[in-house]
Formats: sequence, C-alpha cells, structure tokens
Amino acid sequence: MTPRGPELGAGAEFDLVRALVARWGDLARGIGDDAALVAPPRGETMVASTDVAVEGVHFRLDWMSPADAGYRAVMAALSDIAAMAAAPRGMLLSFVAPPDRRQLLLDLADGIGQAARDAGCPIVGGNVARGSELSLTTTVLGSAFAPLARAGAAPGQHVYVTGTLGGPAAAIRALNDGRTPVALHLDRLTRPRARIREARWLAARGATACIDISDGLVGDAGHLAAANALGVEIVADDIPALDGASLDDALAGGEEYELLVTARAPMDEAAFRDAFGIPLTCVGRMSGIAGAGVVVTQGGRRIEAPRGYDHFSA
Amino acid sequence: MTPRGPELGAGAEFDLVRALVARWGDLARGIGDDAALVAPPRGETMVASTDVAVEGVHFRLDWMSPADAGYRAVMAALSDIAAMAAAPRGMLLSFVAPPDRRQLLLDLADGIGQAARDAGCPIVGGNVARGSELSLTTTVLGSAFAPLARAGAAPGQHVYVTGTLGGPAAAIRALNDGRTPVALHLDRLTRPRARIREARWLAARGATACIDISDGLVGDAGHLAAANALGVEIVADDIPALDGASLDDALAGGEEYELLVTARAPMDEAAFRDAFGIPLTCVGRMSGIAGAGVVVTQGGRRIEAPRGYDHFSA
Repeated sequence: MTPRGPELGAGAEFDLVRALVARWGDLARGIGDDAALVAPPRGETMVASTDVAVEGVHFRLDWMSPADAGYRAVMAALSDIAAMAAAPRGMLLSFVAPPDRRQLLLDLADGIGQAARDAGCPIVGGNVARGSELSLTTTVLGSAFAPLARAGAAPGQHVYVTGTLGGPAAAIRALNDGRTPVALHLDRLTRPRARIREARWLAARGATACIDISDGLVGDAGHLAAANALGVEIVADDIPALDGASLDDALAGGEEYELLVTARAPMDEAAFRDAFGIPLTCVGRMSGIAGAGVVVTQGGRRIEAPRGYDHFSA
Repeated sequence: MTPRGPELGAGAEFDLVRALVARWGDLARGIGDDAALVAPPRGETMVASTDVAVEGVHFRLDWMSPADAGYRAVMAALSDIAAMAAAPRGMLLSFVAPPDRRQLLLDLADGIGQAARDAGCPIVGGNVARGSELSLTTTVLGSAFAPLARAGAAPGQHVYVTGTLGGPAAAIRALNDGRTPVALHLDRLTRPRARIREARWLAARGATACIDISDGLVGDAGHLAAANALGVEIVADDIPALDGASLDDALAGGEEYELLVTARAPMDEAAFRDAFGIPLTCVGRMSGIAGAGVVVTQGGRRIEAPRGYDHFSA
C-alpha cells in the first residue's frame, strides 16, 4: 500500500525492514523486490563500491551515538565513489545484528538516512540478518561519464588535498586517553562528508587521478604511488592540519574522507574554496621514480613518515 | 604488475586481497581502485541486490566445506538478480573474519570463484575487515532491458516453479538428526544454482512476475501474493518434490533458489526441460481475492501449510 514499491510479506525480518523503510520515508525507493533498479544516465558508466563497519572495529558506541555510527558508515562508503568523481545513484544496506538489538538498528538507520539525504543518494535495497556481532555493509552505486581512477597521474604533476586533516585522529587520541575531544575534531570523526561534488568539480578541471583518504594521507599517497608506478613527494609544511591536530594526526590519521588528487595544471584554489567552503591545498608532487613510494619532507629535509591504519593487522 | 587493474598498496589487508585476487585469476577484474566500473549494455537498467551469509546462521562449517559455503553464498545472492531476469555483470564481496582465520577465507574464495565462473559473473570489487564473527556479504550487479518484478501478475494466471524442491530441507533434516544426507539432497543444499538463463527464457515467453524461493515455496508465494495484492492457490499434488524429500520439505524448505513465476499463457514445459535439463511445473494459479494470501490444497481439500524460514526470528 505504500507508493515506494511492492508490499513485503510477513515475518520478523520483514517487520524490521518495514520499520527501517518507514524511518527513511521518501529516501527509500523500490524496497521489497528481489533486487533494486538503478538506471544510469545514457552513456555513463556505473561505479560500485562496498564497505563494512563492524562494531568494536570500525566504530565504538561508547565513543559515538548509533546515529553517528550509521552516518559515518554510509559516508565512508560514499567516499569511495566520490573518489571516482561519480554521482551517487543508490545504496544497498546489509545489517547483521543480534535479535535483541533491534532498537539499535533503528537508531543507526536515523544516521544512515541523514547521510543519504546529505549526499542525495536514495536507499534502494538491503538485507537484515541475525548474527552475534553488529555490522553494516554499505554498497553504493554511482555513475560517471568519465570515472576518475587512482591511476592516471604523470611525473611532475601537483598533488592536492581537500579540506583540513587530522581531526578524526586527534579525536581518537583524546577518546583513547579518556579526554573529551575538541568538538570540531569529534565532528570530523562522527560526521565526515564524502566529497562528491568536490570530486566532480576537480575532475572537470583537469584532475588526473584521485583517491579518498581512508588509510591516512601517507598510506593513501602510497596507494596512489603504487597505482601509478610513480613516487609521491609530500611537503609536510604545506599540509592543512585542523586546529589542534598534530602533524602525525594529519599525516597518518585515517578515515578523513578528504580527497587526494593529482592535477595536470595548477588548480584554482580560491574558486574551490568559494564553491565548497573548504580549502584545496597543494601538498606535493608526483615523482618519476617508480617504486620510490612516499617521501615526506619538512623544512626541506626528509622525515620518517608514520604509516596509516591497517584494519587487518592484529 | 598485473593486467587486472592498478597495483595495491602494502599492508596485511592488501596482502589478503592480493591472495584472494590471485585465487580468482581472470575472474577478478579491475580490483584495486576505490570503486568498480560496470557498464550496462545501452538501454538496459541496472539491477542490484545484496545478501549476507553469517557463519552459524546461514551456514555451518561442520555441515559443509568452506568452498561449499562460499559457492552457496554467491549463488544465493545471484539468485536475487536471476529472479529479475537480469544478466549478471559483476559482484562485490565484503568479508568479515577473525585475523586467525585467513586460510578459511582463501578456501571460501575457491567456492566463490567456482560460483562466479558457473554464473559467468566477474568479481569486480570488495573489502576485507576484521571482526569476531565470520560473514560474507555479496552484492551482485546485473542488467536487463525489461526487469521482471514480483508485481505484475493478474488473477487467473498460472504459477510455475522451476526444478525440483525439498532437497535443501531434507538435507538439513538429516544433518540435524545426525544422519548422513542423501547425496542429491546435500548437493542441492551446498551447490544450488541461480536460475539466471532460465529466468531470461521465461521472461522472453510471457512471464509476468517472478520471485526466487529463498524462504520456502509457501513463504515466497506469500511475498508474491502481497506484492500483487492477490491470492495464490498452490496445488500440493502438483509440486515437483525431489526423490526422498517430504511434502513439507518442498512446501516450506528455504534456500531452494528455484524460481516461482507467473505467466500470461501456458508455458512450453517440454521446451524448458530440453533447454535446461530441469522441469518447469505448473503448481497453481493467482486468485483475485486480495489479502487471501496463500491457499494450499491437496486432493482437492485445503491443508494447513507450513511457513518458511524467517532469519530474524529468535
């Protein structure tokens, strides 16, 4: 009886899906069929990415609200298609949760809905299942006429970063130490923004390669180096750190969801800031030395760069 | 250095992804970028579905090998786009596993690869993360010119089922009782086939609505009834049960991954069998009684039908 799609059948699983769909209102479209329909604009390529958030590994509910955890999980997933300069077309959500934590899923859903709304991405499908550990796997579908890849950079090209870095790492340091994080740092941790419009702006103005900063600036610069079989030189003095964040926070902190972009020609940093209210900063260059990885300098001298976060390390 | 896509960076997570990709060979395409690219044929709509398999909930490794569990998880996910009469275009895999069970993921990957090969669906992306509980979320992307939905049936239309039912339920009964299942039953449990080509054949010959049987024949007939705001009458005498499976196995057993299809006109059952080597059987009709749900008759008399499996029930 809803205008959103076929009716769902009976059962606790479907009751829960119904409650989630009711929570999302007009953001949920076509839920209830075996699969979701997504029609890309004519001539565009579909772009898809999947990302999981596991309680205790990717988020802690003593550090953030369930709504924050949901918001963050979805923005993290959206960030991967933002990095391809794709426009979001739909997301599928797969929940695993203990049956006695049903209310928690509804609270997560509020944050998920907010992120979907902020990113302009409808919720087109999903799945709920029983398990002992709470997790949310988000698959995002987008489309682009000319997707921007990690590969595509050339030696000598400038390397830019969007926004200001170090907030999430500074917040996590404070939380780990039992201190109250600076509000601005905590906000960057709990309410990151996938740089969707920003990436499309950059792609239209000569960006050659792009990655989102999920493993830390140095870690993701390493992925960029590997994908291009080139080196990346980062000038630590030029890194736009958030007030109160340390250089290490900005170099190694993960889950920024800012973009690391290479460009054919100098970018108009002022126009970027006018358009999006955040800075675009040149932080280094691609070097022609294959296999050199990432070199970080400070005051003209090479420094030892901390590595990013590796989820699968013990 | 591989022809499959950009190089991956360092770290245990990436080592594991590399090992998985090596396992899949030419089935894995474009892995290593932030998101996967999937280009649907001109004019086709993309179809997407996500499904999770949690150890101990959806599969037990004392009942089947890791390769079987991987095969089954992927075929279950593919079955949802088969039910839309879509051709598979790519899948994304999201693994959650304890770090000490790395070898198990590689064994799962062998079954995943076999299913991807059998279905002709490349592996285009994914994610590995640490967690305490083993799970695999599979998102499948497909495309169709005219996707077949759950809605679309009209009163009086025939209801068909593909294949023979009851095998998975009979195997699970045996395993629960500590007996060795009949090989044919176990095979239906561990190596189900998504009816991809079958659905497209049926869609081209007047099928009006379709659902895959994941919650049991009666359960999914209930979803079909709800989606169409009609009733479904099932004639138990006509249900094609697998040798040795009980009527209840065939009526209520889940995870069949056969198709339940409504048709505008009688289907050519012999031609279907010739094409695919499995039967197509008329098992009932759509009735015009909205809200009547599913009525099952045997020998002309109404019988109480067992309900299907509900993952989220305690």
